[in-house]
Amino acid sequence: MSRVINFGAGPSALPESVLQEAALGLLDFDGTGIGIAEISHRSKQFTAFLNDVESLICTQLEVPPTHSILFTQGGGTGQFSAIVLNLLARHRLLHPDLANEDRVLDYVITGSWSKKATEEARRLGGGRVNVVVDARPYSKDAKSFDNIPPHNTYTFSPDPALIYYCENETVDGVQFSSDVSSPNSFPFHLLPQEGLLPLVADYSSSFMSRPITRLADHAVIYAGAQKNIGPAGLTIIIVRNDCLVDVDAAAKLGAIPVPISMSYKTLADGNSVYNTPPVLPIYISGLVLRRMKELGGVQYFEQLNKRKADKLYAAIQAGEDKGLFKAKVQEGSRSLMNVVFDVIGDEAKFVAGAEEKGMKAIKGHRSVGGIRISLYNAVTEEQTDAIVEYMKQFVSDTDTQGQA
Amino acid sequence: MSRVINFGAGPSALPESVLQEAALGLLDFDGTGIGIAEISHRSKQFTAFLNDVESLICTQLEVPPTHSILFTQGGGTGQFSAIVLNLLARHRLLHPDLANEDRVLDYVITGSWSKKATEEARRLGGGRVNVVVDARPYSKDAKSFDNIPPHNTYTFSPDPALIYYCENETVDGVQFSSDVSSPNSFPFHLLPQEGLLPLVADYSSSFMSRPITRLADHAVIYAGAQKNIGPAGLTIIIVRNDCLVDVDAAAKLGAIPVPISMSYKTLADGNSVYNTPPVLPIYISGLVLRRMKELGGVQYFEQLNKRKADKLYAAIQAGEDKGLFKAKVQEGSRSLMNVVFDVIGDEAKFVAGAEEKGMKAIKGHRSVGGIRISLYNAVTEEQTDAIVEYMKQFVSDTDTQGQA
Repeated sequence: MSRVINFGAGPSALPESVLQEAALGLLDFDGTGIGIAEISHRSKQFTAFLNDVESLICTQLEVPPTHSILFTQGGGTGQFSAIVLNLLARHRLLHPDLANEDRVLDYVITGSWSKKATEEARRLGGGRVNVVVDARPYSKDAKSFDNIPPHNTYTFSPDPALIYYCENETVDGVQFSSDVSSPNSFPFHLLPQEGLLPLVADYSSSFMSRPITRLADHAVIYAGAQKNIGPAGLTIIIVRNDCLVDVDAAAKLGAIPVPISMSYKTLADGNSVYNTPPVLPIYISGLVLRRMKELGGVQYFEQLNKRKADKLYAAIQAGEDKGLFKAKVQEGSRSLMNVVFDVIGDEAKFVAGAEEKGMKAIKGHRSVGGIRISLYNAVTEEQTDAIVEYMKQFVSDTDTQGQA
Repeated sequence: MSRVINFGAGPSALPESVLQEAALGLLDFDGTGIGIAEISHRSKQFTAFLNDVESLICTQLEVPPTHSILFTQGGGTGQFSAIVLNLLARHRLLHPDLANEDRVLDYVITGSWSKKATEEARRLGGGRVNVVVDARPYSKDAKSFDNIPPHNTYTFSPDPALIYYCENETVDGVQFSSDVSSPNSFPFHLLPQEGLLPLVADYSSSFMSRPITRLADHAVIYAGAQKNIGPAGLTIIIVRNDCLVDVDAAAKLGAIPVPISMSYKTLADGNSVYNTPPVLPIYISGLVLRRMKELGGVQYFEQLNKRKADKLYAAIQAGEDKGLFKAKVQEGSRSLMNVVFDVIGDEAKFVAGAEEKGMKAIKGHRSVGGIRISLYNAVTEEQTDAIVEYMKQFVSDTDTQGQA
C-alpha cells in the first residue's frame, strides 16, 4: 500500500527519506557490514554516532555547558518517577534534616499528562505535593483542560524539591506560549528568585519543534522520542549538572532508594552507555536530527509548524462560524502540535471521509473523544493543506445539505 | 560493504532475512501505509502483532497459564531493580511485620552479571542479601568466574523474598547445565520445598536459545532482547501471577516505593501498553520469533546451538593440546552462547587475522580480556565452521612456525 498521511499523536509520522536511509542501515551501518540493530553500543562507530546526536541537539537547542544530555529508556512515564527520585535526593542532600512533609513538590496541572505526573509524585511519597495551579476551574465548563491559567492563579512554594510543568499537553491540545511576555506563557517571573531552581519540564510532544523557552533556567527537560524525532523506546533528558547527585548518599540520609538505571548521575557518568541504550531508536532519531539541521534547525521547524497550525486553526474557525466545528481549547492556549476540536453532528462521517482520502489517526484520545490532528515536524505543509482542504469541503458539503 | 560475520556479545547478529523484512516494515507495516516506527501502539494492527509475539513465546517455551508475559524497557539493569522492588513488596504483603534485616534476598553469584545484580539489591536495601554461593573460590585461580559451583556449596535461606541466579553469564562464558541431573545444573532440588518460591532467573543471553529448565518453578524470568531475538531496547519478562502484587499497598506497609513503570502488576493490567512500549524493537523481535517457529522452535535451536558450541570447544581443545589456546571455563560449566578462551602468545595477531576474513567482534569483555565468540541463534553453523576453520589454520600456522 502507498503511504498514507499520518496525523497520529505518537508514535507518529517520520520523514520518508529518513525511513529509507534507516532501512539501509538495518543491513549495514556506516559501512561496517553490521546492521545498526546488531552493532555493539560500545563500538567506535556507534560511539561517534551517539556523540553526533548529542551535538545535533546541543547545537540546535543551544544547550549551555551547565547542562548534560542523557539518552535512556522508559519514556515520559519513567521520567515521572525519575524526576521525583533524583530531585528528592538532591533536596535531601541540600536539606538533610527537613521532615518529609516539609519537602514540597510543586506541580502545575494543565492537562492529562501533568495530572498523571502529579499522581506519580503522590504515589512515591517522600514529599508533599503542592498543586501550583490546576487549569480545570478556569475552563469554559469548569472541568476540562482547555487553557493555560492566568498568571495570578499560580502559587509556587518558597524552596521546593521540584517545580513541574508540561510544556505541551498531547491529549488536551494545550500548550504554553513561547513568548514570555504573553499571559499564556509559563510564568518564569513568578518563580522563587534564589539559587538554582529545580524546574522540570516535560517536553515530550514538542521537543525539537521549536526552541526551548528559557532552557538554561531548567533543572531537567525530558522528552520521549516518539513524537517529533524518532521511534518509541528512546527518552532524551537535558539535565543541569547540579542535579547529577549521589542518590546513594541521599538514601543513607533517608531519601527513597533510586533504581540504578534511573539515577541521572549514573547515566551521565557512563555517557549514557552505563547499560545498553536503545541503539536502533537512537539511530533513527539521529537521522531525523541530521535532516532537521540540513533544513535549518528548530528555527525552520518553528516557522513551518506555526504556518501549519495557523492554517488548521483557521479551518476550524471557518467551520465554527457555520456551527459545524468547535475548537476545544481557548484561544492563546492552543497547541501547535496537537490540534483538537469537535465535529458538531456527524463525527463518524468526518473521520470516515478523511480516511477515504488517506488521512489517518485523527480520532481524539479515548479519554476525551473528538478529533485530534497532530502536526509534528514530519507532517508536511502539503499534508496539512490536504486536511484543511478536506475540512473546507466537509463544511461546504454539510452546509449546502443543511440549506437544502 | 557486504555483511560480515558478527560474533558480538550483544547487541548481536540478527537473521539477514528478518532485517530485509524489517526494512520494508519501516515504510509500510502490515499494509497499513504507515511504517512500524510510526504506528500507534494502540492500533488494532499493532495490538494483533503484540498478541502474536506473546503467543510465539508462550508456545515455544510452553509457558503455563500460571504465568504472564510482559514487554517493557530498561534491559537487565532495569530488572536488577524491578525484581527486588516487586518481590520485596510481595514479601511485605505476605509478612507485614518482619523487620527489614529478616527479609532475605538470596543471590547465587556465578559471574559478572549476577555480581552486579547482587550489588543492586544491596544498594536498594529493604532486605538483607545472602550470598547463596560465590563461584570464585571454586575457580582454578580462586578469584575468577570459571565454574558453576558444586551443589553442596549452596546455602539457601528458609523463606527468602527472592532467590536469584543468572542462567548464562555473558561476560564470563559460564552457564548452568539444562540437565537437572548434572552436577552443573541449578540445584532446584535444594530449594526450600514449601509454597510458591520467589525464584528469579536472568535469561538475558540465553533466552530462546533452548527450552527454559523448570520454567513453571520460576517467579520471574527476564531477558533483554538484544542477544538472541532482537534490537536493544526491549525487555521480556515472564512472571508468575502471584508476583503481580499491589506495590502501593506494600509501600503503605513500609516497602520501598516502586516507580510505576517498574510495577509488574501495572504492566500486566495494561497488557504491556500502560505506557508506550518500544514498538520497533518488538516488531523485529516478533519477526525473529516467527522465523524461529518456522524453523522448528527452540528445540531446533537447542540442537543447532549445541552443534555449534561443540565444534568451537573442540577447536579450542585442539589448540590447547598444542599450547596455543586455553579455555577459560571449567568443563561442564561452559556456555553454549558465549565461548571464552585465551590465545597463548599473539592474541592481537589472532584477532587481526579473523577480522581480515570478515569475522568481527571476537574480543573478550573489557573487564576480563581474552577472546569471546558469541554463538547466538542468528550465528549460522556455516559461520561457526568458518571461525573453526580459521582457528585450525591459526594453530597449524603457528605450530609450524614454532617448530621451524
